[in-house]
Amino acid sequence: MAKGKTFIISGPSGVGKSTVLRELFRGRDDLYFSISATTRAPREGEVDGVHYHFIDVKRFQELIEEDALLEYAEYVGNFYGTPKKFVDKAMNEGKDVVLDIEVQGAIQVCTKRPETVRIFIAPPSWEELERRLFSRGTDSEEKIQKRLVRAKAELRTADVYDYFVINDTVERAVREVNAIMLAEHCKPAERMKILSE
Amino acid sequence: MAKGKTFIISGPSGVGKSTVLRELFRGRDDLYFSISATTRAPREGEVDGVHYHFIDVKRFQELIEEDALLEYAEYVGNFYGTPKKFVDKAMNEGKDVVLDIEVQGAIQVCTKRPETVRIFIAPPSWEELERRLFSRGTDSEEKIQKRLVRAKAELRTADVYDYFVINDTVERAVREVNAIMLAEHCKPAERMKILSE
Repeated sequence: MAKGKTFIISGPSGVGKSTVLRELFRGRDDLYFSISATTRAPREGEVDGVHYHFIDVKRFQELIEEDALLEYAEYVGNFYGTPKKFVDKAMNEGKDVVLDIEVQGAIQVCTKRPETVRIFIAPPSWEELERRLFSRGTDSEEKIQKRLVRAKAELRTADVYDYFVINDTVERAVREVNAIMLAEHCKPAERMKILSE
Repeated sequence: MAKGKTFIISGPSGVGKSTVLRELFRGRDDLYFSISATTRAPREGEVDGVHYHFIDVKRFQELIEEDALLEYAEYVGNFYGTPKKFVDKAMNEGKDVVLDIEVQGAIQVCTKRPETVRIFIAPPSWEELERRLFSRGTDSEEKIQKRLVRAKAELRTADVYDYFVINDTVERAVREVNAIMLAEHCKPAERMKILSE
């Protein structure tokens, strides 16, 4: 059985990444979605081991010291990180792993594991991203403008990414992500083993 | 409109490449199959511009001197080559181009155009390739053994190729080639233009 591969999927707020991920995982038991560890308190309805692995700061520090995290970051006073353990278990079972992380996390993962494949979900245009952020109706005009500036800044770190998927329709974006995952399994390093005898 | 890309598809004799190509092109007008120029005389039923561009040696020499061929080779006294003209026309029309050429040709094309994507169609195992060569019933035992040695030698030049597609079933091989072609269109160089304003 071939070992699974790890795929980072990043994208700016409002691009529709969650919808793409939900459709990508529909009916797929050969894919593993990495669940982050966090020191944030669970919100109502959040389940430990499903939405996050909820741990305290002491344990989070231990994970850092044990080099047990692929990446971690602080966000409004809480820590978030990707535990290696579950990622490695899934890959050893032949499953591909998806990490839903941001640019800074992507850079950390790829420093440790350069073979990780990095996919950026991009909007078809900046106008369309702005339209989507407005239509969510959750943010103020000012907050939306901040998100747009941040999205453009993220895209300027684009050389970190191997692939750009344009989310003009969810179907097309999912088709492209699936194509990337399949194509990556056709790379020589993996395939040559089969015929090297 | 995005420009098309060129894909080289190589593979050893008996691997089933022709069947994969036939299925790949079924109902696709967004793909262009590159037709070689040759100095060989047309065989019965072969049509100029369909099976080959049939030209004389003088014209072939001119094409070489004009640098109008992406690659060329001699095979049992005849010349075969890939005219740039039709490849470039198709790419400018936004079509992807498929070149069905051998390892030596692939090396020549990629020296001139390193952005060309190289796909090698490999058998699931050497035993299976041998079985397929026998079941065709067209070659002597000795010729089959020669083909096998040649196939293994070709695979040793494998670092020329970007992708390996294992042809265990035609459906799977076609799915993988399609995934590779789509994934290659998600590479940053092409996609970043969209969002660079």
